[in-house]
Amino acid sequence: MKKTTTLILVGIILILASTLIGVLLFLKNQPPEERAVIQPIATVKPLEADSSLWGVNYPNEYSSLLQTANNSTATTYGGSAKKSYLLEDPRLVLLFMGYPFSKDYNQPRGHENTLIDVRATRRLTDTTHATCYSCKSSDNPGLWAQMGMEAYDAQMFADLTPEINNPIGCANCHEAGSMRLVITNPAVEAAYLSEGLDWRSFTRQQMRSAVCANCHVTYYFTGENKVLTVPWANGMRVENIIQFEDNTGFSDWTYPEAGTPIMKARHPDYELFTADSTHFRAGVACADCHMPYLRDGAMKYSSHNIMSPLLDPQQSCGQCHADVEYVLGRVSVIQDTTYQAKISTEDALVDAISAIKIAAAKPDSDPALLEKARSLHRQAQFMWDFISSSNSMGFHNPDEALRILRNSTDLARQAQMAAAQAAGDPSLLAVGVFYSIDPPPTPVP
Amino acid sequence: MKKTTTLILVGIILILASTLIGVLLFLKNQPPEERAVIQPIATVKPLEADSSLWGVNYPNEYSSLLQTANNSTATTYGGSAKKSYLLEDPRLVLLFMGYPFSKDYNQPRGHENTLIDVRATRRLTDTTHATCYSCKSSDNPGLWAQMGMEAYDAQMFADLTPEINNPIGCANCHEAGSMRLVITNPAVEAAYLSEGLDWRSFTRQQMRSAVCANCHVTYYFTGENKVLTVPWANGMRVENIIQFEDNTGFSDWTYPEAGTPIMKARHPDYELFTADSTHFRAGVACADCHMPYLRDGAMKYSSHNIMSPLLDPQQSCGQCHADVEYVLGRVSVIQDTTYQAKISTEDALVDAISAIKIAAAKPDSDPALLEKARSLHRQAQFMWDFISSSNSMGFHNPDEALRILRNSTDLARQAQMAAAQAAGDPSLLAVGVFYSIDPPPTPVP
Repeated sequence: MKKTTTLILVGIILILASTLIGVLLFLKNQPPEERAVIQPIATVKPLEADSSLWGVNYPNEYSSLLQTANNSTATTYGGSAKKSYLLEDPRLVLLFMGYPFSKDYNQPRGHENTLIDVRATRRLTDTTHATCYSCKSSDNPGLWAQMGMEAYDAQMFADLTPEINNPIGCANCHEAGSMRLVITNPAVEAAYLSEGLDWRSFTRQQMRSAVCANCHVTYYFTGENKVLTVPWANGMRVENIIQFEDNTGFSDWTYPEAGTPIMKARHPDYELFTADSTHFRAGVACADCHMPYLRDGAMKYSSHNIMSPLLDPQQSCGQCHADVEYVLGRVSVIQDTTYQAKISTEDALVDAISAIKIAAAKPDSDPALLEKARSLHRQAQFMWDFISSSNSMGFHNPDEALRILRNSTDLARQAQMAAAQAAGDPSLLAVGVFYSIDPPPTPVP
Repeated sequence: MKKTTTLILVGIILILASTLIGVLLFLKNQPPEERAVIQPIATVKPLEADSSLWGVNYPNEYSSLLQTANNSTATTYGGSAKKSYLLEDPRLVLLFMGYPFSKDYNQPRGHENTLIDVRATRRLTDTTHATCYSCKSSDNPGLWAQMGMEAYDAQMFADLTPEINNPIGCANCHEAGSMRLVITNPAVEAAYLSEGLDWRSFTRQQMRSAVCANCHVTYYFTGENKVLTVPWANGMRVENIIQFEDNTGFSDWTYPEAGTPIMKARHPDYELFTADSTHFRAGVACADCHMPYLRDGAMKYSSHNIMSPLLDPQQSCGQCHADVEYVLGRVSVIQDTTYQAKISTEDALVDAISAIKIAAAKPDSDPALLEKARSLHRQAQFMWDFISSSNSMGFHNPDEALRILRNSTDLARQAQMAAAQAAGDPSLLAVGVFYSIDPPPTPVP
């Protein structure tokens, strides 16, 4: 009897124990909870420009966006600090001579500062078009819907100022209500279509990069009305973009004395990143590094304090990379290498410009060879600017950045050579002749 | 009483259960078994040249070494196939003009073929020194111990031939008995010491790359006796090596008609890989990719069928990378990019050489500018060759390869410019003028 009781008890305990193990294993293998659906507190109207109204429903996202106002930390080559590129590297004053970028060219700051900074830049003149507001305000999606992009761009900057009250915000990337990610910039939507791509067919992970392309792409202004144009119709590689702008005969300005029609590249970070970079091919999106997940209690949210991942590498890089110190070491190597290549490419470009100026001033220079020199200068400068104006100092795509800078150096030297041929003057082949910047660049206000 | 018994029983069961859990956890956290010590069947005498005698103890390693004899698969840019670099890219005939590499320059094959190939090359002449056997035979460690490296190198190639009976084998990297990895090449030991490094203090993981440096490093022959020299005393970056060879006034040959004293770079894969490459910084050794672990039943062994990891990517890359297809895609991007940059750099070099030749032929060319052109050509050609002669088409260190090719291009163009200045003749600035190779390169025998 005692034995039977014992056996029964042992049996019961074993059954209970194995049941418990079974339940635990079952729970362990259950799929994660369905994503928590946040019940909206306030109803946000379509294209609402005021991010604080969206912030009622998404206080974490909104408050992290507000942090971009005061985030002013520098990294070795970037970050969010106020910094004059011209003071840091006076070659830029020469390279942008004759164009407003030679007067004022500062490091971009956080999204909350877009309006302050675009209104403060010395690049503004009375003839600046409203197009310059295109990437600066969450009022834009509403205004574009209301008046169309062409009418928006046709206005003067100062005339549109009263309509523009909010810096970059929720409405630039999200659809109110559904909160889905959307392309709101009509020029970018058109650029995708010119490549045969409809962003509405993109996966969510693709959209986590594509919404950054609302602004972080190269562009130029077409025609009298300065219509915002994203030149992707021939492809997104630097060579494709040069070919496209060559075909349209576009130039931003003519380089004084040299006579080269120059195209300005503008922060083509989306183009550079998607050109077969290691992170892009691995399925990483811009937001994975620049908007890492944070936690507020049980709630997980994407940081909207968008900044250099180097300012919070554990949170940014550490989501995928176990050894963040290793990653930071590699970033240093890549950025130092790119920086040196960029500076050396600038030296070649400055030599080329000096030679073309002198050749252009000589009345008996060969016009065909001079045109050849200008064409080479145009290509070399756009290639260099493609990397120079992009953020990340090459990190977004190290091989592509170094590939492009090698090509740019080669073409810049060939431009110098063609200028010397045009003038029949080998003295134009001097290398690294000292250049003075007069007047010197002025500090950031 | 029944209750007490039950409680006691429950207690005992719980104690047993927790003891069992404790024991299991303890076992789980125990360090792995000491490495299985293989009891040698045969005793191998120190510096034994005949790998088959070592193979008695290590049949898997030995039989995989033998596979290198017949491994003849090509990859896009490399592999182990018989291939003439000169036929593939006739620019090389021009770039090595006046030097035996312009007559015969083939892709290296597996370790078992080293003797066949070194004896078949058309680069051999009656005055070739025995130094050319330095990286071709497992007889070397014994011969170096017996006669010293200087006496070895001082002999003629043909005179040493009777002593050289075995291709690369066990004795080139292992110490008999202990089987530890060792530097056997006295020139490499000296090179490490010239940098303040004693290979005997290296970790095993460091040695898994360092033994490859027994051969896969750049070198040159010093003095009348053609003593093998590895030029690391100023550092292992390409700039350090150029500076070192410039200081010693060394050149491999003088480029005919141009008069440039040229240094030949030789497969500096160890130098390139260790120059802050992503894999090197991650602690990866050459052997991790080129000698992946294989299994023979319960036995794990390193493959000694050393080859391109692209010929067995699952085994090579798949040890660390879960997504091998992704890795192969990235390899393609890196190699295609490097290849295009290499070819374009060659075009710049060929232009520079043409210009220097013409300038050198003109009696009234400025001698100082001509010397400057030659000095730039020398640097540019060594930089290009540093990447061109290394294996992996840039993969061993993509950023460094592209950095060096950009510098090489810049210096090659500057060489061309200096030559035009020397001759006072802008017509020397022509770019991509067609060059003919006469006589054309001959196929691999």
